[in-house]
Amino acid sequence: MRRTIDWADDAIVIIDQCALPAEFRTLTLRTADELIGAIRRLAVRGAPALGAAGALGVALVARAGGDVVAEAARIAAARPTAVNLSWGVERALAKLGDGADAVLMEALAVLDEDEELNRTASAHAAEVVLAACPRRPLRLLSHCNAGSLATVAWGSALGVVWHLAERELVESVLVDETRPLLQGARLTAWELERAGVPYRVQPDGAAAAAMARGMVDCVLVGADRIAANGDVANKIGTYGLAIAAAHHGVPFVVVAPSSTVDSSLASGAEIVIEERDATELTEFGGTAVAPAGAAVFNPAFDVTPAALITAVVTEHGRFG
Amino acid sequence: MRRTIDWADDAIVIIDQCALPAEFRTLTLRTADELIGAIRRLAVRGAPALGAAGALGVALVARAGGDVVAEAARIAAARPTAVNLSWGVERALAKLGDGADAVLMEALAVLDEDEELNRTASAHAAEVVLAACPRRPLRLLSHCNAGSLATVAWGSALGVVWHLAERELVESVLVDETRPLLQGARLTAWELERAGVPYRVQPDGAAAAAMARGMVDCVLVGADRIAANGDVANKIGTYGLAIAAAHHGVPFVVVAPSSTVDSSLASGAEIVIEERDATELTEFGGTAVAPAGAAVFNPAFDVTPAALITAVVTEHGRFG
Repeated sequence: MRRTIDWADDAIVIIDQCALPAEFRTLTLRTADELIGAIRRLAVRGAPALGAAGALGVALVARAGGDVVAEAARIAAARPTAVNLSWGVERALAKLGDGADAVLMEALAVLDEDEELNRTASAHAAEVVLAACPRRPLRLLSHCNAGSLATVAWGSALGVVWHLAERELVESVLVDETRPLLQGARLTAWELERAGVPYRVQPDGAAAAAMARGMVDCVLVGADRIAANGDVANKIGTYGLAIAAAHHGVPFVVVAPSSTVDSSLASGAEIVIEERDATELTEFGGTAVAPAGAAVFNPAFDVTPAALITAVVTEHGRFG
Repeated sequence: MRRTIDWADDAIVIIDQCALPAEFRTLTLRTADELIGAIRRLAVRGAPALGAAGALGVALVARAGGDVVAEAARIAAARPTAVNLSWGVERALAKLGDGADAVLMEALAVLDEDEELNRTASAHAAEVVLAACPRRPLRLLSHCNAGSLATVAWGSALGVVWHLAERELVESVLVDETRPLLQGARLTAWELERAGVPYRVQPDGAAAAAMARGMVDCVLVGADRIAANGDVANKIGTYGLAIAAAHHGVPFVVVAPSSTVDSSLASGAEIVIEERDATELTEFGGTAVAPAGAAVFNPAFDVTPAALITAVVTEHGRFG
């Protein structure tokens, strides 16, 4: 399976990201409930991939019949922060008047476009990185996963690594493990391993020390929602990373398709931040790692103000 | 057992910190190798507790006979960053000429003093916090564990919480889980739970977002080594936390006994930083959470420059 999410045999097929890196397997999702469950437990995640999931989800419920609009709304509400999910739902839903086949065609168009848009956005971002960072080869730092697994294919922030690696301009990538769900250690490291790009996994708390030691030429991250003023919601930890990068004069580049821009929001203060279950922090594989009943602060995302960002780059080039 | 580390029946007895929070149990250490193993796997950890471990370790090998000086050197080298370990070893070793009993008496004096010094240092620090932070009650943020478990008893940074909580001045404590070994989630949360102080565990990456939301009045951390210029080595993640605190104007207070000061080092740049095993990041409870053979960057500590620190406080008051 080349794509992270696709349509096959009248169903949505995804790479099961909960099983990586131990096992590479696919999941077939035949109902809205199965899709919503997969989205909620992050078996499919990443803003661009969620856009595809939203569009394919509407295709699924349109073919099943019933109250398609209500089912589409349930899918759009599966997770609140990435705007791409509702964007994908709305885009497919707009074709409902033309019938279920038209909805599916539109959803498949979203998938086809996604790889192309991310290739273009990351190519633009690669030029921004090369202009901002004089050192060759480059030592890059990645947070969460903004690679092929976060998109239909190719990737956004990690797409920059692929472009630069093709030109033999990448020395290595420092991979924030990205607590609590370890998308960096589990997914980004897996992608870099497969691609043969040298990398090292680090605790999120080591990023500032790595910068202080002069080990980081540029930070590359994706985005879950971008406000009209360029503020960026992304995986928790992104904001602290941006503060540290600014403190050290390390360029901080955000890469995302323009479907991640929510121009209805004036600033990042208006972005709804998802809070997730305590067990993500208090348990690991069923083992308690905190006292029974411990309360948590577990926001899935944070907001990085535009002032801390060197460039937000989409398929149209620099944003804002 | 009231003390984290003590002497009983001709052996060192420690609270096994690898077993918490699931199980409260003690370990009896009868040889230098057992002690070194316990120190390396962090069954006993925290700079002040390591000072006690060093002193008691010399008592242990002095009673066993043999090449006490060589054994003491092995103990002092078990971990490189916390200066207290070699400080404790040297302090006990200085009594070797007076016989094994004199060595043990000196080691026990180190233990007795530790609680007293930490109570005094944290009382001074509580006054610094109250002067720096106008809000009542206080919302504090803790990284790693600088509590009773990091010392013989009472604690350094968490000792400030105990003093302030006695005066009903603590609203809650945000507890950085502190990857990779989760000393915050496992140990600090356990201490706060036992003490009845409200707390929430958060991923380390959420600290900056918590500050941006106005949830943090003051950051409190311990120290593993303090250079003459006031630079502080402490658990990895401390430096990024200090940058974020400075960015938000949140006071950042370091609390440690003066045995943590290494005046032989002009600045933090001279502090040796321990790098630990890849498996701390690539596995969890035997489950792989990164690709097989993944390389890591896993420094156990980082260095926070004095300029980012509101105050370093010892039993003598503000340092520097």
